[in-house]
Amino acid sequence: MTSSESGVDQPWNQQRLRSSNERMLLERLRATPASRAQLARETGLSKPTVSSALASLEAAGLVREAGHHTPERGRAAVLYAPDPSAGYALGIDIGRAWLRVALADLDGTVVARKDVRNRARTSGAMADLVVATAHQVVAGSDVVPADVVHAVVGTPGVYDPAVRRVRYALHLPGWGRAGLFDRMREELGVPLAVHNDANLAAVGEHAFGVGAGSRLFVYVMIGTGLGMGIVADGRPFTGASGAAGEIGFLPWNDRAPDTLEDAVSAEAVVRTARALGMTGTLTAKSVFEAARAGEAAAVGAVRQEGERLAHTVSAVAAVLDPELVVLGGGVGHSADLLLQTVRDTLRRLTPLRPKVAASALGEDAVLLGAVATAMGRARDVVFAQRA
Amino acid sequence: MTSSESGVDQPWNQQRLRSSNERMLLERLRATPASRAQLARETGLSKPTVSSALASLEAAGLVREAGHHTPERGRAAVLYAPDPSAGYALGIDIGRAWLRVALADLDGTVVARKDVRNRARTSGAMADLVVATAHQVVAGSDVVPADVVHAVVGTPGVYDPAVRRVRYALHLPGWGRAGLFDRMREELGVPLAVHNDANLAAVGEHAFGVGAGSRLFVYVMIGTGLGMGIVADGRPFTGASGAAGEIGFLPWNDRAPDTLEDAVSAEAVVRTARALGMTGTLTAKSVFEAARAGEAAAVGAVRQEGERLAHTVSAVAAVLDPELVVLGGGVGHSADLLLQTVRDTLRRLTPLRPKVAASALGEDAVLLGAVATAMGRARDVVFAQRA
Repeated sequence: MTSSESGVDQPWNQQRLRSSNERMLLERLRATPASRAQLARETGLSKPTVSSALASLEAAGLVREAGHHTPERGRAAVLYAPDPSAGYALGIDIGRAWLRVALADLDGTVVARKDVRNRARTSGAMADLVVATAHQVVAGSDVVPADVVHAVVGTPGVYDPAVRRVRYALHLPGWGRAGLFDRMREELGVPLAVHNDANLAAVGEHAFGVGAGSRLFVYVMIGTGLGMGIVADGRPFTGASGAAGEIGFLPWNDRAPDTLEDAVSAEAVVRTARALGMTGTLTAKSVFEAARAGEAAAVGAVRQEGERLAHTVSAVAAVLDPELVVLGGGVGHSADLLLQTVRDTLRRLTPLRPKVAASALGEDAVLLGAVATAMGRARDVVFAQRA
Repeated sequence: MTSSESGVDQPWNQQRLRSSNERMLLERLRATPASRAQLARETGLSKPTVSSALASLEAAGLVREAGHHTPERGRAAVLYAPDPSAGYALGIDIGRAWLRVALADLDGTVVARKDVRNRARTSGAMADLVVATAHQVVAGSDVVPADVVHAVVGTPGVYDPAVRRVRYALHLPGWGRAGLFDRMREELGVPLAVHNDANLAAVGEHAFGVGAGSRLFVYVMIGTGLGMGIVADGRPFTGASGAAGEIGFLPWNDRAPDTLEDAVSAEAVVRTARALGMTGTLTAKSVFEAARAGEAAAVGAVRQEGERLAHTVSAVAAVLDPELVVLGGGVGHSADLLLQTVRDTLRRLTPLRPKVAASALGEDAVLLGAVATAMGRARDVVFAQRA
């Protein structure tokens, strides 16, 4: 038996070990900058192994010096940190009213951003607007286009990768057309992943918002439509066909309306307000403003919305048992007016009562979830390209 | 730098490597028996490494010879297989009507089993019955009591390990009492894990039944109560507090009854049958039998049950998006009468339509899930004790 037969000293194993050491050090440095000695102490690797790995990472442009640490006694030590400019990622939020695009580095710092009113009348015009806006954002930054390695777009509905189109995007006419995202991919010139908007909002709240540290939580997006994103153990839980959290389709057994989306979305708030006597041009937003000012019909409409949201939360709790339910989306952003009713109603409805909280990221939740998702992928791509 | 500094050749690494090689070979042998040469080829380990690992495993009683393989040319090779008698596990199903106990080896083969009518009137008597029956099962087998290393018990409700008692077991009076499972553990003399019955049934269908190979499926248990178990990527998904799948608490918005459990469980079938004109002593079972014989009121009651189950499935699909919904439990075992109505109603209710199928394991689903769960843990325990 030669030593190479033992399966431990084979060249490919050494190479894999090197790469996995570099990866481990890079991930460690994402938390805080550290010196060679610190890294050796924390990882159990020898100092020469750490030095050689850091040299490779620095030569590849993945790590850079980031100041010095001067201990009480002993020599000053160089601190290392990941180079966030090793690659960039695009996050895109396609909403019915607004299109938002952000360019972020590998630390997730947004270096350029543009929000434009979505006035596109056709899905083709919308795709063009996405591509044009993304190009403008990159062009307006100091980033070289070739350094943008990944993009993530959030959209209502469920993207089916097999046929490369979106299903169930009922509020964006023509958005289910085949070829739409292929065209965006091609004209953007960057790999583009498509995710459900509520799923991304949940990821955003986990990365930067009120869901940080939660083992299992959901983000309920209430606006034109009704959707939900689930994050379990830090990762999006999307179900067998990507339709987990499509709670707009939950049955709603009062005579009419028929689905929970009809009963809970922005339009339902307006419909209830009218039924209670409000007149004029109403939007969910104006109803919430009137409720804030104490107008009785508006207060009643908001109370009913809160009760129906409690129904929604109780259904989600009975199936999934999340520890936290985050309310977001156009209606969810008035959570301050809704939370008390939701909690009171939950107490009557069910013994399963998760915490309920307002979104911390507001209108940026989808965009920041897209940024976080694209950044995660971009880190992998850049490491694979350079290390 | 000495070689021990490199972090690869340290003694604890060698030991860990040995143990992980042995573990890998053992797991590989659980699929099919194999020779040294086969194992070396498949794992990339050297033949001497394989020989030495097999010798250790054999000395520890974890692996044994299992015949010979005679190739067309060359010498006959000894085949190795795990020794299933290296340890045993108990699976226990505590149901309202029946208590079932099975003793299985590390292959999951049931070597002894006893089903007894549950006539216990108090939770204390029930605990005594569990312990006495388990002892009888072991005593009636050829297994040495000390070789029984783990037990898993399935019960309605949600076990809270922090307070070591069951919540929400509404149909087993006194079952939520503190100290009950501690007493069973002590008198049984075997580590005992407590799981929700529907969760175990789902694990059973995944291990031995209709859920085999499914990435995300649920088992809906319809009987005295209404519960659901979820298996995602081969593991039970139990939520933040163990209450995932407690779908009896789903809201049900027709005037009365109030929860889905009231609307869908066995009692509801009887109530509907009465409302439609059936008289006499009725059980869900007798209603299903009458429906099978064509009695109009019974057929109507069964149809309504199917419609309400479709409502249940549509709610689960909108939150979780499983690829398969398995119907089980006392009512679910008449799935043949229900499936068509469930599927037809789903088509009207929602575009999210998972496959719906009858349980393959029938009344043994919980017991076999308990066996599978206990066996998995027993394999770990035995390996840790002996290797």
